[in-house]
Amino acid sequence: MKFVNTILLSALSMGVVAQEPKNVIMVVGDGMGPAYTTAYRYFADDKNTLEVEQTVFDRMLVGMASTYPARISGYVTDSAAGATALATGVKSYNGAIAVDVDKKPVSTVLEWAKEQGMKTGIAVTSQINHATPAGYSSHNESRKNYNEIADSYFDRKVANSFVLDVMLGGGWDYFIRDDRNLVEEFQNVGYQYVDNIAELETADSTQPLLGLFAEQGLNWALDMPPKQRLKTLTQAAVNHLENDQGFFLLVEASQIDWAGHSNDVGAAMFEMQDLAQTMSWLEQYVDAHPDTLLVLTADHSTGGFTIGANKIYRWEPQWLDNLQASPYAIAKRLMAAEKKSALAADLLGFSLNDEEKSMIEAIDTQDEEIAYQTVKALLDVRTNTGWTTGGHTGVDVPVFAKGPGSEMFRGMLNNTQVADNIFTLLGQK
Amino acid sequence: MKFVNTILLSALSMGVVAQEPKNVIMVVGDGMGPAYTTAYRYFADDKNTLEVEQTVFDRMLVGMASTYPARISGYVTDSAAGATALATGVKSYNGAIAVDVDKKPVSTVLEWAKEQGMKTGIAVTSQINHATPAGYSSHNESRKNYNEIADSYFDRKVANSFVLDVMLGGGWDYFIRDDRNLVEEFQNVGYQYVDNIAELETADSTQPLLGLFAEQGLNWALDMPPKQRLKTLTQAAVNHLENDQGFFLLVEASQIDWAGHSNDVGAAMFEMQDLAQTMSWLEQYVDAHPDTLLVLTADHSTGGFTIGANKIYRWEPQWLDNLQASPYAIAKRLMAAEKKSALAADLLGFSLNDEEKSMIEAIDTQDEEIAYQTVKALLDVRTNTGWTTGGHTGVDVPVFAKGPGSEMFRGMLNNTQVADNIFTLLGQK
Ligand SMILES: [Zn+2]
Ligand SMILES: [Zn+2]
Repeated sequence: MKFVNTILLSALSMGVVAQEPKNVIMVVGDGMGPAYTTAYRYFADDKNTLEVEQTVFDRMLVGMASTYPARISGYVTDSAAGATALATGVKSYNGAIAVDVDKKPVSTVLEWAKEQGMKTGIAVTSQINHATPAGYSSHNESRKNYNEIADSYFDRKVANSFVLDVMLGGGWDYFIRDDRNLVEEFQNVGYQYVDNIAELETADSTQPLLGLFAEQGLNWALDMPPKQRLKTLTQAAVNHLENDQGFFLLVEASQIDWAGHSNDVGAAMFEMQDLAQTMSWLEQYVDAHPDTLLVLTADHSTGGFTIGANKIYRWEPQWLDNLQASPYAIAKRLMAAEKKSALAADLLGFSLNDEEKSMIEAIDTQDEEIAYQTVKALLDVRTNTGWTTGGHTGVDVPVFAKGPGSEMFRGMLNNTQVADNIFTLLGQK
Repeated sequence: MKFVNTILLSALSMGVVAQEPKNVIMVVGDGMGPAYTTAYRYFADDKNTLEVEQTVFDRMLVGMASTYPARISGYVTDSAAGATALATGVKSYNGAIAVDVDKKPVSTVLEWAKEQGMKTGIAVTSQINHATPAGYSSHNESRKNYNEIADSYFDRKVANSFVLDVMLGGGWDYFIRDDRNLVEEFQNVGYQYVDNIAELETADSTQPLLGLFAEQGLNWALDMPPKQRLKTLTQAAVNHLENDQGFFLLVEASQIDWAGHSNDVGAAMFEMQDLAQTMSWLEQYVDAHPDTLLVLTADHSTGGFTIGANKIYRWEPQWLDNLQASPYAIAKRLMAAEKKSALAADLLGFSLNDEEKSMIEAIDTQDEEIAYQTVKALLDVRTNTGWTTGGHTGVDVPVFAKGPGSEMFRGMLNNTQVADNIFTLLGQK
């Protein structure tokens, strides 16, 4: 009996001491608070069945994380402090890019992976020097120093190498400047460069890779059929990173946050859809490569998005199903159109009632902001969606994980624990 | 090696096949979406330390649950359908009290416990025949049939016995009526009756117990010093329920929901505090009684409550710390007061700025609703709190568990799985 108990204990501790993963894929849904993953379930739900279908998020949820920054910045974080916590395990001030409250650089899990001989990459829908990817790949006292951050991707060496082997996202404005052409500099040292997503398919997977596809962030998923650009970038990144020493990849669904800032429920749900497609592909990847750890969380929630509003017990995402373009793109087209109501019905994918027709007909040909507000207001009423802010909120965010070490992410985590766990799993004592 | 693997496998499966708990304490935080448990962390945080202190909720989080009702009621549930799902494992329509979509009664975990020879009880801050306790203890096609539900607590027998051994909460309006006095009827069959919380201490713990302390719901925690009435009711209930055959107790922090409906952040945080104190006591109880399973979740979120609002990255719960009464009670006193601003500063616990003074001075002596709105608006601005509805929202809710079987509640659950797990743990095949 004593013997069995000993075996039992070591079996149990074997269950607790996680096996080290070869590869780590860290996914951040920027701004993806719990209302977003919940809402996506109902958006994706097949309304013709009695059951509500499970999403990839439902299959992988393991816990929740707090998001508060360092004391000096209160309880509501920005994406820079959020990325710094998730990437370094250190709480810092809002605006900090992998520096602590004294503005001293703190090392990131991506850098640590590089130092262990792993390949490293980022695949994001923002510019690649935006807060979240920068929080893993750079150090700066301010997220706003976009050029300095872009420069650092070339200038700063980690383990005698460039910090990133693969960089996919937007950013021409920062990488091809009057004062410096970082694209050429990367090409001169052997990086392939592509500026069109379609070219990713034929890129040589043995070379390091820089792919920039927009001046700043990519277009909305809704405006880039087949609406799965993040999935495409992620597949290409994994394809280029696979090697015997393993890899660390940061994937960011950057624009969930941007949809939240705009209080744009249509854009938000299709950004979530692109992320869900990405996660489904990664879920299969982990099934096929059980030495890969996959983690997804958010840095914070955005917009004060609520599923239902105005005392009405109803949320109707089906009104978003047939959007032909993003609400922003629809608004721009309506500004220029003559028969606005008819075009709006075509682009929104449903016929308008009289009140909606008058809203749409009143769209000014000059004021883009008001045109966009009008389309969003119409969709908020149809879906019965609520918002409380154009900024962030402090609610805890869901945590998802699969693969070796995923049990370390169970339960309630501080956001810094996400980095701490990855450091531990990658052998840091 | 083969032998070790076999032992290993059985050790692992021993970890998965949970041990049956003797007692089950199910706690529902009505309306307690993720913003509430998060906000409570920052409300309770000691602002003089660098760290944010962990709450009892943080220590016990194991996953999240979806809350949607049966297809016919869309994606946003009410408390009746929520209670029905949590208590029976069956999704039903909004308004249903432990009946299915065809209005047929479906058995509850509390009834099942009774049938297994366990004692049963409810301890709530609403009337005891309100939606959540009714969902565990009665069956009715509508939550609005309050008298029928109250009658059923006496008239309906489960396993040849009254369904509830202990009932603590509000409800004189329904239990002492012109047409029927249920209190006397319960007394005539051997129940002790108390109508004052202080009497609970001296009640004979060997007899069944009915305690009613208000016409409908109890007063706000803020208006019942020492602001821990739910904890007191819970302690008394456990004390009366303990026995060799085990017990099932439903505890409900009913008024988190009511604070959410009123968009009252002050009341909400002190209802959360009462729940947190209750959970801390229950946490210690489970430590001392490791045969007890403790589960906490919510039926839905209420109010579209957000931590931060209006594009400002800030949430400041410290303005609630010194509230001397509930915002509603403060509003009532201000209506009658002569020197309104001075009294408001006393009751709110901070000095008012000029804008706040004019808001308070403008309070009408007649309109209670507007007076209450004014006090709430002032606190929303001070704390920078957002709300989107006077109703419910559809966001997933956190799940907390401790004790034997708690690992069954890990990850993403459908709300019906909470009941399914308890049925399984209490031996239902
Ligand atoms: Zn943001
Ligand atoms: Zn409610």
